Amino acid sequence: MQVYQPPLRDMRFVLHELHGSDTLKDMKGLSEITPDLIDAVLEEAAKLVTEVLAPLNASGDTEGCTYENGVVRTPKGFKDAYRTYVEGGWNGIACDPEWGGQGLPASVTKLIEEMMCSANLAFGLYPGLTHGAYVALSHHAPQELKARFLPKMVEGTWSGTMCLTEPHCGTDLGLLRTRAEPQPDGSYAITGNKIFISAGEHDLTENIVHLVLARLPDAPKGIKGISLFLVPKFLPGPDGRPGMRNGVMCTGIEHKMGIHGSSTCQMSFDGATGWLVGEPHKGMRAMFSMMNSERLSVGTQGLGVGEAAYQSAVAYARERLQGRALSGAKHPDLPADPIIVHPDVRRTLMTMRAYNEGCRALAGWVSRNLDLMERSEDPEERRTAEDFTALMTPIVKALFTDLGFLNASLGMQVYGGHGYIRDHGMEQYVRDARIAMIYEGTNGIQALDLVGRKLPAHTGRYLRAFFHPVLDFIDAHLDHEVVGPLVGPLGKAFGALQLATGFIAEKGLRDPDEAGAAATEYLRLFGVVALGYMWARMAKVAAEKRVEPGADTAFYDAKIATARFYMDRLLPEAAALWGAIKAGKSSMMALDPAQF
Amino acid sequence: MQVYQPPLRDMRFVLHELHGSDTLKDMKGLSEITPDLIDAVLEEAAKLVTEVLAPLNASGDTEGCTYENGVVRTPKGFKDAYRTYVEGGWNGIACDPEWGGQGLPASVTKLIEEMMCSANLAFGLYPGLTHGAYVALSHHAPQELKARFLPKMVEGTWSGTMCLTEPHCGTDLGLLRTRAEPQPDGSYAITGNKIFISAGEHDLTENIVHLVLARLPDAPKGIKGISLFLVPKFLPGPDGRPGMRNGVMCTGIEHKMGIHGSSTCQMSFDGATGWLVGEPHKGMRAMFSMMNSERLSVGTQGLGVGEAAYQSAVAYARERLQGRALSGAKHPDLPADPIIVHPDVRRTLMTMRAYNEGCRALAGWVSRNLDLMERSEDPEERRTAEDFTALMTPIVKALFTDLGFLNASLGMQVYGGHGYIRDHGMEQYVRDARIAMIYEGTNGIQALDLVGRKLPAHTGRYLRAFFHPVLDFIDAHLDHEVVGPLVGPLGKAFGALQLATGFIAEKGLRDPDEAGAAATEYLRLFGVVALGYMWARMAKVAAEKRVEPGADTAFYDAKIATARFYMDRLLPEAAALWGAIKAGKSSMMALDPAQF
Repeated sequence: MQVYQPPLRDMRFVLHELHGSDTLKDMKGLSEITPDLIDAVLEEAAKLVTEVLAPLNASGDTEGCTYENGVVRTPKGFKDAYRTYVEGGWNGIACDPEWGGQGLPASVTKLIEEMMCSANLAFGLYPGLTHGAYVALSHHAPQELKARFLPKMVEGTWSGTMCLTEPHCGTDLGLLRTRAEPQPDGSYAITGNKIFISAGEHDLTENIVHLVLARLPDAPKGIKGISLFLVPKFLPGPDGRPGMRNGVMCTGIEHKMGIHGSSTCQMSFDGATGWLVGEPHKGMRAMFSMMNSERLSVGTQGLGVGEAAYQSAVAYARERLQGRALSGAKHPDLPADPIIVHPDVRRTLMTMRAYNEGCRALAGWVSRNLDLMERSEDPEERRTAEDFTALMTPIVKALFTDLGFLNASLGMQVYGGHGYIRDHGMEQYVRDARIAMIYEGTNGIQALDLVGRKLPAHTGRYLRAFFHPVLDFIDAHLDHEVVGPLVGPLGKAFGALQLATGFIAEKGLRDPDEAGAAATEYLRLFGVVALGYMWARMAKVAAEKRVEPGADTAFYDAKIATARFYMDRLLPEAAALWGAIKAGKSSMMALDPAQF
Repeated sequence: MQVYQPPLRDMRFVLHELHGSDTLKDMKGLSEITPDLIDAVLEEAAKLVTEVLAPLNASGDTEGCTYENGVVRTPKGFKDAYRTYVEGGWNGIACDPEWGGQGLPASVTKLIEEMMCSANLAFGLYPGLTHGAYVALSHHAPQELKARFLPKMVEGTWSGTMCLTEPHCGTDLGLLRTRAEPQPDGSYAITGNKIFISAGEHDLTENIVHLVLARLPDAPKGIKGISLFLVPKFLPGPDGRPGMRNGVMCTGIEHKMGIHGSSTCQMSFDGATGWLVGEPHKGMRAMFSMMNSERLSVGTQGLGVGEAAYQSAVAYARERLQGRALSGAKHPDLPADPIIVHPDVRRTLMTMRAYNEGCRALAGWVSRNLDLMERSEDPEERRTAEDFTALMTPIVKALFTDLGFLNASLGMQVYGGHGYIRDHGMEQYVRDARIAMIYEGTNGIQALDLVGRKLPAHTGRYLRAFFHPVLDFIDAHLDHEVVGPLVGPLGKAFGALQLATGFIAEKGLRDPDEAGAAATEYLRLFGVVALGYMWARMAKVAAEKRVEPGADTAFYDAKIATARFYMDRLLPEAAALWGAIKAGKSSMMALDPAQF
């Protein structure tokens, strides 16, 4: 059975003990954000996801969305759940109070996002898309559009989408054909077909606000001729309420491997009324505000599913009796030992645990930087936080989703044959997790973003936001009783990352194919080093906390043991990655397409 | 779209050029097996799978099997396809002519098995199970049972199953409860419930022959008290034709992640008539004849799906236009370049290719040894072949299925969002491939078999069948113009394998948990070294053949380039594996179950 309880203890560890949430209140707009308040919010969120969302996860998968004559129905229960979600004010927790939001810091809201992804990934996509559209609009829309749309979107009575993909263009948006004709009233008539539009049509909200990429008549060819438009399903009337139906229509939904409860729509725009968001031909910039926010969210999806798979696997490993411990029966009173005694089951659970907790810690670090870049009073600190976030966005997206899929598959493996049948819900995790490696830019595209944009930006300035703290930490803890043995292997892996960075900077400058050939392994190497750094830091905190009076030593000891496991068993991948990277592009690019 | 053409050129390379099929005719019973005959058989098989089986793969997945009142219906078209398959004589190709089979060597039949797995994995399971049951019966059943059942099973008009699992026991068969009561006529009355029985009930054959594990009344507890029984669905009448319905009934089928066209049945035995196969309480031995054969077949399933995913990905990568080559447009006449120009797509395709062709070569080596152990006149050669097969069985099963799932997922990734929707069939490969890591002993169990049984057997004798030829090859080719640069990295990886073997032998002897902790990574390390050895040997053959007059140099050059890619990019994993292994069990086993 799908087992999930929000890991509140670990979340508190990451937020309060590792990343120091007590300093959040010093940032702009957060004066009331205390650890106690945060804990109360997290506990309420935990109730919501366990009582309202998780119970609909398997049934939503089985039932899926249905399409009929342009109307999309979400699975039974989704509507009520969404109402509860909106009425609880959850939709606006991360939004600006100016538009009715609660203005909570990312450090907190990202944890709630994780809970939602664990409990019901398909459901979470609806508000997730709305939030992405909110981000793009709040940064780029003219004030009048903001005033008309944002309050409804923050409230959650209107939802949002992101309409990029067309049948012939996904990654390469320069090819897109949807056009926008200027109208005398200053609006635009949008015409074209979009596919793969998550939440493009559904029955959860009274209106849907599409952000649509399209070309103006005088647009230059390619990616520099794309503009962004806001196209609502219903045109708001003078009273601000949904009025006339706009010329946008859902013409079908996709049958997918997973996330069945999320509608993936084919959308047809037929002279639909839209308004320009941002400057003409600068649509990609505006879209990237949304995209960057979404990419971090997709990373969170990987972590969320990975955590749910882990908890479900642990529950089964504790209760399934099969075989005896290799070192002698652990429960001679039972017909067999629970499978958690077997080393290979341990290996599986520890792997999942080490990746999940490592990713949660890293996500917390990124969230803190999201807060700093938005709210710090110090421009230097804001800039460093921006650098760091820009650098880590592709890593979080690709690494977390690769690991989320891996963890879902590992969790299923613990169940054996029982994992492959539908009843236990483990195979749903595998199917659901798989999409996250693809959408919002495939993980290969993330890797290219890292080596092609983030690495060379400002002659490597972004890197410093990561390299400096890691290097300082390693240097400072070589002789630390608990952390010393961990920073040894971390230092080696970090050395490989530095070598790989130099390799790409040098070779990639002369030949972009060399950078491309190294990209995926480089992103992974960066990721495993980043997780290693998080584990070393977590071990340090745990070592300090465990000796405090009344400390929960079992929790801290588990942290330290898992840190050791990470260094022992998972970080060695770094050697393989550097080995592969330094081989260069030669054999990878040797074949003529006809030879495949 | 699912694209699949049997890779006949590569199969001929493996069979004729790499493993020397011209010597097959020197083995017992194979005097007529010439390379020309083999090619003709493979071409006919290729027709069968592309014309009859592949067209039913996607539709079989969509429709699935249906259950009603004990009756299971296979998807539309399966019955006709099965009839064509049986009428073509394909069911008995690997069986003994004594029972009506064609007695083709494994070197040939395993390639046909691969084709079937590529074309339609779910369909292939029906004859696959029959063959496994055939193997067990032909080795262990009394002559009278053989005479009554084998001709029908070889012909394919009766099919077979393997009834092991019960709700509370899968891996740990010692817990099983199904009982067998001796009857006055020498038969047994079998009573109990089995689950996860592939092909347990269906509409393809007029009878189904279940091999059932059960306990005799005087059975010792645990695994040493299990006997094997043959329990047909219909009791054969005096005329040998299916007569009275036996007390065995399908009570339901599972809804699974994939292989929807294969029925996975809950079976109820209610005093069903059965006959003992092999000795009382020695059922596991008989079952293992079947299981070992099945484990190799499941490995083939991984390879089969991996190959189909590869071909489908290549087809899409050649035709999908998106973006421009990093080094400048390759097709300025087109709106964009085909995605095969991008390094990361290359990396993906080369990875799939290197694993598939490497696995095919390794499977060919194992097949040759299957033939030798059965047909060599030299007892020493037979014993070495047996050692080698015993050693490689868990490796082939686990490595090939891990890689098959990886390749299916990589193939899907090439399609981006189009891979996640059902239309292109790529997500089916992922769902279908996943089961192979689980059934016939999870891959973790394979790893335990390798370190716990195969490594220590006869104080390491099995290992020699692999280590000696690899070592000899490396030593002999250090200065070879083409192979020399490949055996360098191979030698390093092989060194890591030797160290890991010593580590496990030493530590595992004192503490079985240490062997268990190393098992999965050790199997993988063994596997990647074995593939590396295959690639070095293939490169050698290619280097020799490419200079022959009229040689297909494009093919041989691609072989050599792929060998380089394997050493450059995939073999480096060995370093990470050895790094993980040598860390030992300490951090893996540190947590108390309550700490998870």
